[in-house]
Amino acid sequence: MRTFDSATSAFGRAGPIEVARWEQYQLGDRLPFDAMWYTVPPGASSERDCHPEPEFSIVVAGSGFVETAGRLTEVATGTAFLLGSEEAHVIHNRATEVPLTIFSAYWMPPETGQQDAAETGREPVASAGQSG
Amino acid sequence: MRTFDSATSAFGRAGPIEVARWEQYQLGDRLPFDAMWYTVPPGASSERDCHPEPEFSIVVAGSGFVETAGRLTEVATGTAFLLGSEEAHVIHNRATEVPLTIFSAYWMPPETGQQDAAETGREPVASAGQSG
Repeated sequence: MRTFDSATSAFGRAGPIEVARWEQYQLGDRLPFDAMWYTVPPGASSERDCHPEPEFSIVVAGSGFVETAGRLTEVATGTAFLLGSEEAHVIHNRATEVPLTIFSAYWMPPETGQQDAAETGREPVASAGQSG
Repeated sequence: MRTFDSATSAFGRAGPIEVARWEQYQLGDRLPFDAMWYTVPPGASSERDCHPEPEFSIVVAGSGFVETAGRLTEVATGTAFLLGSEEAHVIHNRATEVPLTIFSAYWMPPETGQQDAAETGREPVASAGQSG
C-alpha cells in the first residue's frame, strides 16, 4: 500500500493556484487516470479552465465554490464533483484564512480516443495560468 | 457538473460497516472506475478484504488505520491510499465518537482483462460481510 498526502507533496505555482501533479509519485499506469492536488489560497480563484478530459474531484481540505455556466455550487470538505468534457469551470475560495485543497483525477474519454491525457499537452485547471 | 455527498447518499449495512455504492448515481461509464463511499463506525473495523481490483481511496471524514500485511498505517482526512490487486486490507476506526468515511475507486487491472469490476461479482471491502 502507498499513501499520498498533499501536505508532503511538491507543489508548483500555476497562476493564482498551486498544483502538485501526481507524476511525482511515479505510479506509471497503476491508476486509470492522471491526477493532481491543487490548492486555491484564501480569497483567490483559479483561472477559467476548459479541456477535453472529464475531471473528477474531491475536496480534501477547506471549502469553496465551483463556477460552471455562470452558476456557483458550494463544495465542502469531502464533497466530490464531476466536470464533463469541455465543461468550463472556475474554482473560488471565499474563505479568509483556510486554503482550499482539491484532489482531481482526469482522463481522456474513450469516445475521443484512448490517448493518454499526459500525451495531449493539455493541463486541466492549471493550463491557462501555468508560468513554470 | 454533478456533486456527490456521502451525507445524502443511500448507505446499506455490510457487516460492521456501511456502504454506499455509486451505482446509485447512474453514471454509466462516465467514470473510468467503479466507486463507493463507506463508513466505519467509531471503534469498529472492516472485515478483511482482498480482491483482484486495485483500490484507490481518499479519507473524506474522520481518521483511521489501514492494516496491510500486519502493519498499521494511519490515514487522516484528505489522505489518499492505493491498495494493489489482491492486497489484503482491514480498515480500523479507533476514534470513540467520529465515524470514518472513505471514498474508494476500484477497477479491473488491464493485465487481468478489461472486464468491468461490476461484472465480476466481487465487491471490494464489503465482500465478506454483505448481508443484504
